[in-house]
Amino acid sequence: MKIDGQHYRTIFPADDGEGMMVIDQTRLPFAFTMKRLQSVEDAADAIRTMIVRGAPLIGATAAYGVALQMRVDASDDALTRCCRSLLATRPTAVNLHWALARMEKRLREVAPAQRAALAWEEAAAICDEDVEQCRMIGVHGHALIAERHRRTGRRVDILTHCNAGWLATVDWSTALAPIYRAHDAGIPVHVHVDETRPRNQGAALTAYELGAHGVPHTVIVDNAGGHLMQRGMIDMCIVGTDRTTAAGDVANKIGTYLKALAARDNEIPFYVALPASTIDWSLADGLDIEIEERAQREVTHLTGRTDAGAIETIQVTAPGSAAANPAFDITPARLVTALVTERGIAPASREGLLSLYPERQSSAA
Amino acid sequence: MKIDGQHYRTIFPADDGEGMMVIDQTRLPFAFTMKRLQSVEDAADAIRTMIVRGAPLIGATAAYGVALQMRVDASDDALTRCCRSLLATRPTAVNLHWALARMEKRLREVAPAQRAALAWEEAAAICDEDVEQCRMIGVHGHALIAERHRRTGRRVDILTHCNAGWLATVDWSTALAPIYRAHDAGIPVHVHVDETRPRNQGAALTAYELGAHGVPHTVIVDNAGGHLMQRGMIDMCIVGTDRTTAAGDVANKIGTYLKALAARDNEIPFYVALPASTIDWSLADGLDIEIEERAQREVTHLTGRTDAGAIETIQVTAPGSAAANPAFDITPARLVTALVTERGIAPASREGLLSLYPERQSSAA
Repeated sequence: MKIDGQHYRTIFPADDGEGMMVIDQTRLPFAFTMKRLQSVEDAADAIRTMIVRGAPLIGATAAYGVALQMRVDASDDALTRCCRSLLATRPTAVNLHWALARMEKRLREVAPAQRAALAWEEAAAICDEDVEQCRMIGVHGHALIAERHRRTGRRVDILTHCNAGWLATVDWSTALAPIYRAHDAGIPVHVHVDETRPRNQGAALTAYELGAHGVPHTVIVDNAGGHLMQRGMIDMCIVGTDRTTAAGDVANKIGTYLKALAARDNEIPFYVALPASTIDWSLADGLDIEIEERAQREVTHLTGRTDAGAIETIQVTAPGSAAANPAFDITPARLVTALVTERGIAPASREGLLSLYPERQSSAA
Repeated sequence: MKIDGQHYRTIFPADDGEGMMVIDQTRLPFAFTMKRLQSVEDAADAIRTMIVRGAPLIGATAAYGVALQMRVDASDDALTRCCRSLLATRPTAVNLHWALARMEKRLREVAPAQRAALAWEEAAAICDEDVEQCRMIGVHGHALIAERHRRTGRRVDILTHCNAGWLATVDWSTALAPIYRAHDAGIPVHVHVDETRPRNQGAALTAYELGAHGVPHTVIVDNAGGHLMQRGMIDMCIVGTDRTTAAGDVANKIGTYLKALAARDNEIPFYVALPASTIDWSLADGLDIEIEERAQREVTHLTGRTDAGAIETIQVTAPGSAAANPAFDITPARLVTALVTERGIAPASREGLLSLYPERQSSAA
C-alpha cells in the first residue's frame, strides 16, 4: 500500500541486494522509519521486539532470516540452528512455524552450495503468495462493499477492530484489503477504527495506515461501536481473525465478540476476513481455544507522545489495583454473517468452509 | 465510605464551620487530597474544573455554594445571581438544576436575615437525603448479591462500568452501594472494573475507591467483559444510569449497551441502580435521547503518572486521525434484568417503575 503516495511492502530486499528492509513498527504511529536486517540475528530481534508483527509478516521475516544465514553458512547444522532460534522468538505464532518448516524442508532437498540462492527465492515466494492471498481477499470483500454502495448510493461506513491491516501482512492486508480496493476503485468509504485497548493497534496502526493511504477514517474508543450501530452509522463490520475453527468460530482480538453482538442486535453484516492458513481444521468449538493472558502492565500503562514530542509511558489505573489482560475472545459462528477468504465468500459454518476448501473434507473436525 | 480505615463523605463542613471540605477528584487516583471551599466562587470552580463530579455530588456542592454566599450577602439579588452562576458551571447536569431550584425556592420563603442558617440546613438536608437514598439502593441491591452467594456458596463476581460509585455521590454510591454493603456484611465479592475509555473513570476512580475501602477488584479493558462472561467468570453486572426513561431504557456511559448485550447472550443478570431523580417520566424511548458528543482530545490523549512520578499527558492515536467521542449510549429495557432503586427492585418497564412510584401514574410517558 502507499505511504505519502509511494508504494511499500512491509518487507523487501535492500537496493544492494545484501539485506532486507522492514518498517520499524515499534516507532509507529509517530515516526515512519525503515530498519535494515543484515543477519539472522537481526531478523530474530526484529520479530522478538515487534519491529515486525502480524502473523503473515512474521512468517515472511523468518523466511528471509533463514536466507540471510544461508549466505553465511549453509551447512545442515547452521540450517537447523537458525530455524530453531527463529522459532523461539514468538513460539505461539502459527505462521512462523509454517514458514520455517517450509524453508527447512525445501533447503534440505538441495546441497549446501545451492541453498543461499534457493532460500532467497523461497522467501520471496512466501511473500508473493501472501500478497496474492491478501489481494484475493480484497477482490472478494470489495464486492460486498461495492454491492452496498450500489444499493444505497451513499458512502459505505465500515467498522473494524484491531489491526488486521497492511502492516500485519506483506501487502494489501486481510480485513482492510476490501476497503483499500474499494477506496482505490473510487467507492466512497469511511472506516470507524476501534482504538483496541489494551495495545491500541487500532488507534496507532490501523489509523496510521488508513491515513497514510488516504482512506477517510475516525478513531473511536472500543465502547462506542454499539452506539454507532444503534444510530444507523455503520453499514458493515469487517475484522480479521487469529484462528478460525472448522465450524466457523472466530478467535480474534479481545472485544471482537462485543462488536459482533451489537452488529447482530442491529442487523448489520459482520464479516471476518482470513487466509486459509488461519483455519484450524482440527477444532470445531471456539470455546475450546485457550486464551492467552498477557502482562498486567499492558492494561495499567500506556505509551505515547507528549505535546513536547517526547515518548513517555504513564500509568492510568489506580496504583495497587490488579489488572487482567485476556488477549483474545471467541466470536461464535452464529454471529458471523460470512467469512471472506482468498477463495471467496462462504457462511461461517463447517459446510460453508468445506464449500471453499473441499479438499479438507476428511480432515475437518 | 472508608479511605485507609477512616470514614469520609465526599463533601462535609470544615471543622471550624466556616467552609466546606471536598475530595479533590482531579488528583485521584494518584493523590488523595482535600480541598477547602470558602465561597460560592470556590464552589463554582470546583464543579467547573471537576474537582467534584457525579450528578448527586454536583447538586450537593451547588447547594453549599448557595449557603456560603448567604453568609456574605443574603439579599434577593445575591440569591438570584449565585444560583445563576452555579447553574452555568455544568449546564446539562439535571441534579444541579434540581438542587439549585430547591434551594432558591426554600430561601425565597424567608427573610434575608434567616437565609444563611436555613441555607446551611437545607444543603445538609440535600446531602443527608442523598446518603439515605444511596443507602437504601445498597440495602435492596445487597439482597441480590446475598441471594446469589446463598445459592452458590461461592464468591460473587460482579462487573461494573464507569464510576457510579461513592465518589459520584455524597456517600454509599448508587451502583457500588450493594457491593459495599455485601462486602461489609462479610459476603465474599470481587469486582471486575471496566476501564471505561475515554475518561477512564473505572480504572481511575472506581478502582481507587474499591481499593481504598478494601473491596477485592481487578481492572479490565472495556473489550474484556464479553470474554469473561463467556467463560463463566461473571455472576452479575451492576451499573448506574444518567437518565432512565419511563419505559426503563437506560442512558449510561458509552459502552454500557455492549456489556448488556454480552450479559444477555450469556444469561447473566444485568442490574441498573438508580435514585428516582434520574428517571425522566416524560420520555419513553431511550433512542430519543440526544447523546452528548465530547472533545476529540479525550480519545486521542491520556493523562497519567510516569514511573518517575510526574503527571504527563500523551497522545495515543495516529497524528492527523480524527476521533469521535459520544459520551453515552442507550441500553434498551429488554436487556435490563431489573432496576434497583431506593424504593426496591422492579422490572425495567413502565409497569415496573410505576409499581415503585405509583404517584407517577399520571405523568409517565
